[in-house]
Amino acid sequence: MNEANPVYSDVFDTQKKKLGLLGGGQLGRMMIQEAISYNIDVHVLDGDPNAPCKSIATSFREGSITDYATVLDFGQDKDVLTVEIENVNIEALEALEQQGKKVFPQPRVLRIIKDKGLQKQFYLDHHLPTAPFILVNNMDELRENRDFLPAANKIRTGGYDGKGVVLLRSETDIPNGFDAPGILEKFVPFSKELSVIVVRNERNETVAYPVVECEFNPQLNLVEFLFAPAAISPETEARAKEIAIDVINQLDMIGILAVEFFLLESGELLINEIAPRPHNSGHHTIECNYTSQFEQHFRSVLDLPLGAPGIVLPGVMINLLGEAGYHGDAKYLGMTEAMQQEGVYVHLYGKKQTKPFRKMGHITVALPDIDRAKKIARQLLQTVKVIS
Amino acid sequence: MNEANPVYSDVFDTQKKKLGLLGGGQLGRMMIQEAISYNIDVHVLDGDPNAPCKSIATSFREGSITDYATVLDFGQDKDVLTVEIENVNIEALEALEQQGKKVFPQPRVLRIIKDKGLQKQFYLDHHLPTAPFILVNNMDELRENRDFLPAANKIRTGGYDGKGVVLLRSETDIPNGFDAPGILEKFVPFSKELSVIVVRNERNETVAYPVVECEFNPQLNLVEFLFAPAAISPETEARAKEIAIDVINQLDMIGILAVEFFLLESGELLINEIAPRPHNSGHHTIECNYTSQFEQHFRSVLDLPLGAPGIVLPGVMINLLGEAGYHGDAKYLGMTEAMQQEGVYVHLYGKKQTKPFRKMGHITVALPDIDRAKKIARQLLQTVKVIS
Repeated sequence: MNEANPVYSDVFDTQKKKLGLLGGGQLGRMMIQEAISYNIDVHVLDGDPNAPCKSIATSFREGSITDYATVLDFGQDKDVLTVEIENVNIEALEALEQQGKKVFPQPRVLRIIKDKGLQKQFYLDHHLPTAPFILVNNMDELRENRDFLPAANKIRTGGYDGKGVVLLRSETDIPNGFDAPGILEKFVPFSKELSVIVVRNERNETVAYPVVECEFNPQLNLVEFLFAPAAISPETEARAKEIAIDVINQLDMIGILAVEFFLLESGELLINEIAPRPHNSGHHTIECNYTSQFEQHFRSVLDLPLGAPGIVLPGVMINLLGEAGYHGDAKYLGMTEAMQQEGVYVHLYGKKQTKPFRKMGHITVALPDIDRAKKIARQLLQTVKVIS
Repeated sequence: MNEANPVYSDVFDTQKKKLGLLGGGQLGRMMIQEAISYNIDVHVLDGDPNAPCKSIATSFREGSITDYATVLDFGQDKDVLTVEIENVNIEALEALEQQGKKVFPQPRVLRIIKDKGLQKQFYLDHHLPTAPFILVNNMDELRENRDFLPAANKIRTGGYDGKGVVLLRSETDIPNGFDAPGILEKFVPFSKELSVIVVRNERNETVAYPVVECEFNPQLNLVEFLFAPAAISPETEARAKEIAIDVINQLDMIGILAVEFFLLESGELLINEIAPRPHNSGHHTIECNYTSQFEQHFRSVLDLPLGAPGIVLPGVMINLLGEAGYHGDAKYLGMTEAMQQEGVYVHLYGKKQTKPFRKMGHITVALPDIDRAKKIARQLLQTVKVIS
């Protein structure tokens, strides 16, 4: 923590504040799972009647988190509102903020992050390192900027999980681009993808987690798993944390923020993108760190002190995605074998139905020897399957 | 694990089996909290409409767990039944077992453990080490056995948390004894109190946890905290585990069992008592071991493989008891300070009302240096208070 702790209320009585959560997916579910240990009630709004949070939320309301009237009404009897997904109705959150509710992360921050154009402009304005970019409005403007290629063309709003992004290597790729408001981001060859989770509360206390690294499978050209601590120099570790803390401070944001980086061969770090909520790259913190990202999430928005982020065990995280070709009631292959192994931690998200590449759960392998953990994680990628 | 693993079902589909839990207290609550990670539904029966499990159970039925008809009816649509407290209607569980339901721990085992006379006789019959005892039916029989003193007089059924036990040092203490069916257990001077948690599933796989030790405060003559691993010789550690495994095997019990021991100056171990459920002496396993006692509980009764019991971090556990003199809505003092410290894990039990000595929560201090953990635990005993 970067500042002396001011005095907190001597009386811990979290039930005085009514916490509302927009979004009832796995990120909310894992937050609630940990909030139980502090007697913290969590009231959830989500449009899916089978949302992962439903059976464990203190109360669950079925309704659209992107609908102005629904969000405004949901917030009326809450004291604090937070999100587990960016795609929410920001105008309603602004209205709630004006009513005097605490809304963390602040709607102002969500507005910047939701729009990749504003997000990139924010980095520029605050001298935060990121790849050069150009704002474009349509395919004609992609053509006009052909000299800027190779570059990634990203739509400004609505993209997620790799959707809404296409790499334009040269002019001939331009027809694959988006005929919509977007950005052209200069392609920068990088050696690693890194991520840092940072947290900040109302007292401007901040905490940064140890850096996480993506492991790519070069044959398949996809992320196999994430691991922490990253295999990087102490200087890069310190610099990545420093930038991430700088981002959350410059945003003047309360809550939890994931900052994803490209590490270049030169050692330079560029911010790729940010997410103002618990993040896939922080799932291992449940077992691997003294305080998990999910606990930090509710600590940060409820005016509680932040927790220690130090490492208990190194760890490797794999996502359990719905297997291609399977739709329907989820079944899990290879699980009983996996759960017999020391250091293998299973997290299923309570989703009854699987579909191709749906995030159904994750497994963290946490062991003192990270090479052994990686080996086990690679085996589990072969043996654990979500089918129907 | 003491046997080669037989083949488990390749398809992990826990929702096929409907699990019913008798008792909705903190032991059930912590079990449900971990069952969430495996998509395991838990249906709870408890007489208290504000039971700690209520808001997180898949379903909650308000009803007496000691009432024959209520328990029998609750079990009708369940496949597996388990308990988080011994004081349940055993006859109803026997009837459910006869209907073909799986009931773990078995009613036969609950019957032995619930009655301290049968429990002690069981040890004798199976050559398990325990202090000498005499069965008594009333105060006259206490007098007849005055030559057996000093001895503890314990009522055969219904005692818990130190209630139903009185030490009779000499003949003059006899009027403090119970004029009821009980046992007289020879007082044996001991140097330490130890505990071992063991688990056994339907495949006769067994797991024993590292030994836990009680730390007494000699001034106050009460348990200050529990810590693990215990400060004992490797021989005593091995022998305690061996006896505990022997007890669960001789009982032919499926489920989780806490075995409490007296360690004599001679090095001899005597069984004090046993509990067929998760136990206060295993709370630290949530953070300190690869698999917690709560996860082992549901693994053992649901025909799942047992988890690895190895140590992640040494730990010290203190109970948060309602402060003497306070009744009413619970408030927690010293908590925000506690939760800032690395390695301090808070667990509150969701009880709205405090009363003197009520178990309201616990804190585990888990750190690589156990002496530092003990020091912090001693401080927390002074600073964290549950009042109203």
